[in-house]
Amino acid sequence: MNARERLVESARALLWERGYVGTSPKTIQQRADAGQGSMYHHFAGKEDLAEAAIRRTAGELRAAADALLSGPGTAIDRVTAYLRRERDVLRGCPIGRLTQDPDVMVTPALRAPLEETFGWLRARLAAVVREGVDRGELRPTLDPAATAAAIVATLQGGYVLARAAGTTEPFDQAVGGILALLGAHTVRPRPKEGH
Amino acid sequence: MNARERLVESARALLWERGYVGTSPKTIQQRADAGQGSMYHHFAGKEDLAEAAIRRTAGELRAAADALLSGPGTAIDRVTAYLRRERDVLRGCPIGRLTQDPDVMVTPALRAPLEETFGWLRARLAAVVREGVDRGELRPTLDPAATAAAIVATLQGGYVLARAAGTTEPFDQAVGGILALLGAHTVRPRPKEGH
Repeated sequence: MNARERLVESARALLWERGYVGTSPKTIQQRADAGQGSMYHHFAGKEDLAEAAIRRTAGELRAAADALLSGPGTAIDRVTAYLRRERDVLRGCPIGRLTQDPDVMVTPALRAPLEETFGWLRARLAAVVREGVDRGELRPTLDPAATAAAIVATLQGGYVLARAAGTTEPFDQAVGGILALLGAHTVRPRPKEGH
Repeated sequence: MNARERLVESARALLWERGYVGTSPKTIQQRADAGQGSMYHHFAGKEDLAEAAIRRTAGELRAAADALLSGPGTAIDRVTAYLRRERDVLRGCPIGRLTQDPDVMVTPALRAPLEETFGWLRARLAAVVREGVDRGELRPTLDPAATAAAIVATLQGGYVLARAAGTTEPFDQAVGGILALLGAHTVRPRPKEGH
């Protein structure tokens, strides 16, 4: 890894472990085994480097979600694969957690990737739900945007509940609950039925 | 307000604004207009005072939720009243937010009230769903515990999405989405139907 890469990875790890305010340029440099000159050669400063770090994490989250949501199967199959994928639940979502970091929230360049990521995720899930409706798998009464927002919120809130409980059980319950609610909107093909 | 009350209220405000690590005993005393002697007369230390502050916030949250969930109407009416009640969405949930405070999470006396509050809320909502099923308002296929976990998670995740977006819109969408999903499990009374 070159120095730029090491600085981004170091900033990602420290943002995760200590938050923005607890992460000093010096700590980032030490962990990256890079000098101050190197950091300021590649980045305008701590904010610029933190933005690169958050954007990389956000990019990975999107790629992982997109792979599962673009996979095979019905809309429900793909939403299930996404919600049930292996997660380090008790650590939380690396993007969702940053919304609770006051310094990140007041810095537009750092909040922007959070807004974009969740905006993208909601739109991607809404598209999957819409496909399900269009293919006749899901009932047409289902509002794709609202359903997608509820799915993303259940995931993010599941992390909060799991952390409060100190166990993954509430996360699993919440995911099971939303999938069961959604499952009842499945159109079961029946022979000779009007609609 | 006596000194003990002022100390608890001061600790609540500071925990909310600055988090546990950012709140020093001195700042709590200054805001409470109370001396060090007074603080250590009433509380064993900062942790003890923070626990009292968190328990008071948790108590208020439970009382407000219980009032709406014990109100008139069907199970869906009561869940709707609870989810749609006026909230300061962009500030977030004062209890949920503490699950992202690393110092709170590693201190058992401070994490306990978070676990208890969400445990209570899930059980209370599960009881409402179960009543709805028992009264024939909701379909018996609905799992009360999983449904309750999904509702509480949607609420907590709705706060996360609203903060990321800088607007309450995703919160309102998520709440609308879960209520629509739940609404489809309503049993509509029809004349002369077997079941």
